[in-house]
Amino acid sequence: VAELTDVEQAIETVINQFHCYAVKGQKEYLTPNEMRELVVQKLPHLGKCVGPLDEKIECMGDPDEAKLEFGEYWDMMGDAKAPEASGSAPR
Amino acid sequence: VAELTDVEQAIETVINQFHCYAVKGQKEYLTPNEMRELVVQKLPHLGKCVGPLDEKIECMGDPDEAKLEFGEYWDMMGDAKAPEASGSAPR
Repeated sequence: VAELTDVEQAIETVINQFHCYAVKGQKEYLTPNEMRELVVQKLPHLGKCVGPLDEKIECMGDPDEAKLEFGEYWDMMGDAKAPEASGSAPR
Repeated sequence: VAELTDVEQAIETVINQFHCYAVKGQKEYLTPNEMRELVVQKLPHLGKCVGPLDEKIECMGDPDEAKLEFGEYWDMMGDAKAPEASGSAPR
């Protein structure tokens, strides 16, 4: 994985995070509890922009059955942009 | 933007990239040419995983009218995972 650009490294970081926390699902999905841990530990600031964590987790359904797959995780990360990153700069 | 975690910084990096290249659309969207520049310059390795660039750009439609908005850009970045990041580890 040599010579990746800064953006490529950033993408890898976000992807690897998913894999680190997706223990039960063997890198395939996050359980609600794994998602909670990831957000609490790794997104203390941006996580707030995603909306109330408990609500998100409840929406996932049965805590023993629910699976957050990579695509959904990735979409959630995209929602996690800080207010200052989403265009408060002067136009 | 103090004390962001590594994952948060990574998310910011990917988001800021979009804003840097979205000149014509004033941070709201990428034109096909801006997208091409971004992929060529910033995703020399991972970009290949997204699929043929010319095909992507053609799918966007009229080069003078087409707009790639943030959500679509973000989805594209999620597809840009390197093969070794998407689960080639032993199960």
